[in-house]
Amino acid sequence: MSIPSDKRSHLLAAARGEEPADIVLKGGTVVDVFSAELLKTDVAVCGNVIVGIGSYSGKEEINCTGKYLAPGLIDAHMHMESSMLVPGELAKVLVREGTTTVIADPHEAVNVSGTAALDYLLEATEHILIDVYIMLPSSVPASDTDINGCGEFTAGQMERYINYPRVRGLGEAMRYTDVINGEKRMAEKLDLFQRINRHIDGHFPDGTGKALQAYRLAGAENCHECSTGENALEKLRSGFAVFIREGSGAKNLAAVLSGLIAAGVSLDNCMFCTDDKHTAEIRSEGHISTCVRRAIAMGVPPVQAYKMGSFQTARFYGLKDKGAIAAGYTADILIMDKLDPVHPDMVMKSGRILSGKEYKTNYNIPVPEELCHTVYLNQIDESLIRVPAEKRTTVIGMLPGQLLTQALEEEVTVKDGLFVPDSRYNKICVFERHNRTHTAAAAPLKGFGLHGGAVATSVSHDAHNIIAAGDNDEDILNAVRCIAGMQGGYAVSSHGRITGKLALPVFGLMSAAPCAAVEQTLRNMTAEAEKLGIYKGIDPFITLSFMALTVIPEIRITDRGLVRVQ
Amino acid sequence: MSIPSDKRSHLLAAARGEEPADIVLKGGTVVDVFSAELLKTDVAVCGNVIVGIGSYSGKEEINCTGKYLAPGLIDAHMHMESSMLVPGELAKVLVREGTTTVIADPHEAVNVSGTAALDYLLEATEHILIDVYIMLPSSVPASDTDINGCGEFTAGQMERYINYPRVRGLGEAMRYTDVINGEKRMAEKLDLFQRINRHIDGHFPDGTGKALQAYRLAGAENCHECSTGENALEKLRSGFAVFIREGSGAKNLAAVLSGLIAAGVSLDNCMFCTDDKHTAEIRSEGHISTCVRRAIAMGVPPVQAYKMGSFQTARFYGLKDKGAIAAGYTADILIMDKLDPVHPDMVMKSGRILSGKEYKTNYNIPVPEELCHTVYLNQIDESLIRVPAEKRTTVIGMLPGQLLTQALEEEVTVKDGLFVPDSRYNKICVFERHNRTHTAAAAPLKGFGLHGGAVATSVSHDAHNIIAAGDNDEDILNAVRCIAGMQGGYAVSSHGRITGKLALPVFGLMSAAPCAAVEQTLRNMTAEAEKLGIYKGIDPFITLSFMALTVIPEIRITDRGLVRVQ
Repeated sequence: MSIPSDKRSHLLAAARGEEPADIVLKGGTVVDVFSAELLKTDVAVCGNVIVGIGSYSGKEEINCTGKYLAPGLIDAHMHMESSMLVPGELAKVLVREGTTTVIADPHEAVNVSGTAALDYLLEATEHILIDVYIMLPSSVPASDTDINGCGEFTAGQMERYINYPRVRGLGEAMRYTDVINGEKRMAEKLDLFQRINRHIDGHFPDGTGKALQAYRLAGAENCHECSTGENALEKLRSGFAVFIREGSGAKNLAAVLSGLIAAGVSLDNCMFCTDDKHTAEIRSEGHISTCVRRAIAMGVPPVQAYKMGSFQTARFYGLKDKGAIAAGYTADILIMDKLDPVHPDMVMKSGRILSGKEYKTNYNIPVPEELCHTVYLNQIDESLIRVPAEKRTTVIGMLPGQLLTQALEEEVTVKDGLFVPDSRYNKICVFERHNRTHTAAAAPLKGFGLHGGAVATSVSHDAHNIIAAGDNDEDILNAVRCIAGMQGGYAVSSHGRITGKLALPVFGLMSAAPCAAVEQTLRNMTAEAEKLGIYKGIDPFITLSFMALTVIPEIRITDRGLVRVQ
Repeated sequence: MSIPSDKRSHLLAAARGEEPADIVLKGGTVVDVFSAELLKTDVAVCGNVIVGIGSYSGKEEINCTGKYLAPGLIDAHMHMESSMLVPGELAKVLVREGTTTVIADPHEAVNVSGTAALDYLLEATEHILIDVYIMLPSSVPASDTDINGCGEFTAGQMERYINYPRVRGLGEAMRYTDVINGEKRMAEKLDLFQRINRHIDGHFPDGTGKALQAYRLAGAENCHECSTGENALEKLRSGFAVFIREGSGAKNLAAVLSGLIAAGVSLDNCMFCTDDKHTAEIRSEGHISTCVRRAIAMGVPPVQAYKMGSFQTARFYGLKDKGAIAAGYTADILIMDKLDPVHPDMVMKSGRILSGKEYKTNYNIPVPEELCHTVYLNQIDESLIRVPAEKRTTVIGMLPGQLLTQALEEEVTVKDGLFVPDSRYNKICVFERHNRTHTAAAAPLKGFGLHGGAVATSVSHDAHNIIAAGDNDEDILNAVRCIAGMQGGYAVSSHGRITGKLALPVFGLMSAAPCAAVEQTLRNMTAEAEKLGIYKGIDPFITLSFMALTVIPEIRITDRGLVRVQ
């Protein structure tokens, strides 16, 4: 951290003990990430920076006797969009749980709105309750079959962002086949960041062997896509930083960490991330704090677990003023009764103890109009979602608790050569919403179980077209029209009437409302959706949102029809 | 490392195993710095880069069964000038001992020749047998009493170097009082590098307490000036990377490492450096390899000791392609029979197994004329070095085996009101050599013991004026004139005749001759100097070279007279 020249004299005088510090945290026990010790010491803070540890006096002194002080936690990889909150609101949720810094990849928003999304997010993350560093999405669109709003986010477009101080590098290179094969456009993006010594995030689900070596050679430096200890071990040995992921969908911590612990390897190159985690889960169990807690429970020494959740990530990304309690570091400090469970009694962010006041403040910036109008759907009618069918036809099989699908051939009801949905075989539809192509496609869906209605969502990875499913066309169209009217969100329709809706007008992905309001609406409408009989183990909106993601086997649907995925 | 686009396709194909690699090191045991394991695996290399580990075939295969492979070692902080060799020659000495990368601070050369020195060294380190990264000297001149050739090396002058890829940051901030007190010119230099997130090297001998906190706050990130375990521990806990120094003068490893081991703290933030180490010692016992060997002997697990000597330094300085054996890293690999003693049988540098051919190649670039003419001394005679004295006068007391001096008041021989040197009280003189000021000063010197002659050197820290000492003015002037004639170096004069000389015409500090020739000359002339009766424990040239360094207590001499140092 560069000390502002007008404050240098005061800060140094406070460090030397010749002037009182602004705030001194007195007598606590500090998690020292450098020596990996617990250290009894005061912490002196001036403005937003720690000026010294040792014995200090301050204008304000906070008695921390018997308390533990740990550096604010850092999420090594997350998509803010999964929270459905704009950054100013999300920050309030995260910082309460002790996460003070995140490395965010705005892959979803950029898929919808391209550089306009990036411009907004860079500004919207500037003055909020956490620090946000941005990785530029490398894989927009996520596959060549995706029709998103942005088109391709090219190396050329990236150039104007690479020297922005909070842009740390290239986001997860999920088009790993392109990376491994040296595909030209991907290579241009990798080059762009490697030339200036920035970071390249990896994404290679259970990548192994020579393909993994090629992926490392091409520049990927980390991977959050390890689902087994064995795979994490191979990646670690091969030079990848292993980002241990514990989110809402993917919970890899137990498998990965137990594997690494059993192998007895160093955890210095392991960090924590959530990737995607919903606010209700964050509020009920924590965020990176959950990872730290679970690591401690598995036997990782507490100081090391905190270090994995703070300093190791900061050092990896070259954030020289984050992740530690020492002079020159940003004063992001968790004050806790115990090291475990990981739950801050007080959070100091940038030198300020957060209180009700900060949590009630509105940190949101106005969202540009164009980002709140991303759903282009004109008149839609049954003609768009007819499914010509024989009695025996191709069906998407949804599986409870999984994102994988099955490609089935089953007997469905057919009338006049068209598939007729029912509660056993729902109809799933995708409507292109970005480019006024008015394309849509539909297919039979088994395993959802909806009867007497339909649900729809504009959140659908990664192109975020509109997906709907139901047992009749009228409710499907009604729910989709409702989403178009809200310019994005979730909707439930039953017997021709909207029984639940959540507006997500920002990119069709996020709301600017406070977290509590969004969660309440979501709870209500999830209950409405469940009334329609959706099977256990299926989340009406989240499971649906992955049905158009053409990178997960076995079969998906886009606005142009069914796609088989190997 | 950015893969050159014309080679990307071949390198990736080799990594994927679809084309043979250029060289495969087969069947060795690799020091894996990521997992901290020993790993049996092939290492595939194409051009200068490692393309993969695993099972590979190559056009050339080197059987490494039973061998150990470790990443090339890195010196975290050194002054190349201390070797008295130009970089091309020094590199040959270092790489044979396993040091493939150094972080160099050209503090001495810049004191003499300013930016011209930097320009030359940047070019002279470009294509040699090791990789050299440069820290810009922060403290030129080293003190306000120093008259050097450069004057002040200012933040303004630094600006044109800061984006040079091999310039990593600001060199050791040895004017630590300026750092701690926010002195304006030093603050400008710190700002310059902090603004762009570069590194600031520290130098605060046994700095402690609040002064140390202020030093960290101001931006210093490491310190190689720890002489006790206690001090190293305080610095480590305070957020400094501890550079454990084992050079020719200062040997801190045993004290520092035993202290840290006893405290049971993490060694993740500890690295190795030599600071100043002479080639004869490097050739007889090793370089960073000596640090690794001694650390292992003290109980540090071998893989961790290697990691301290390679990966930890690379990561600290953001050298993302150095310090590890993994795809995407520069192929700097030591091939050894055993992990300990640390002595490479073969060294692969940038993908090439070094052999006699490379060691015989001349990698030196022509030295610009102006850098070989840095000694400006016109007619000098006795009148410049007269010491008016009472019988009882101030004497510099040299101490065997130490750089500290004593300020003594003793009875010396006086004739006509002038001090007359003899073998008990030699005369020490300093001649300003940079700026044609024709200033010189002299004083009595006890503890050197020279009789029947004089020695002189143009190496004298940090301003590098000419120092001479002897028992008579004629030999003193003769030796100094010899140095002026050589444009720098060492000289011995006895009874009016030059009995030994070593030309160091580059900055008056370095020779472009091969190491063996320089060492042989040095051995011969040291023998000549010792014939003159110099006391045991005193190196005739090195001890002398510190007599003008006005930052070490108790008394020093510059071209303007005696300086008391607190």
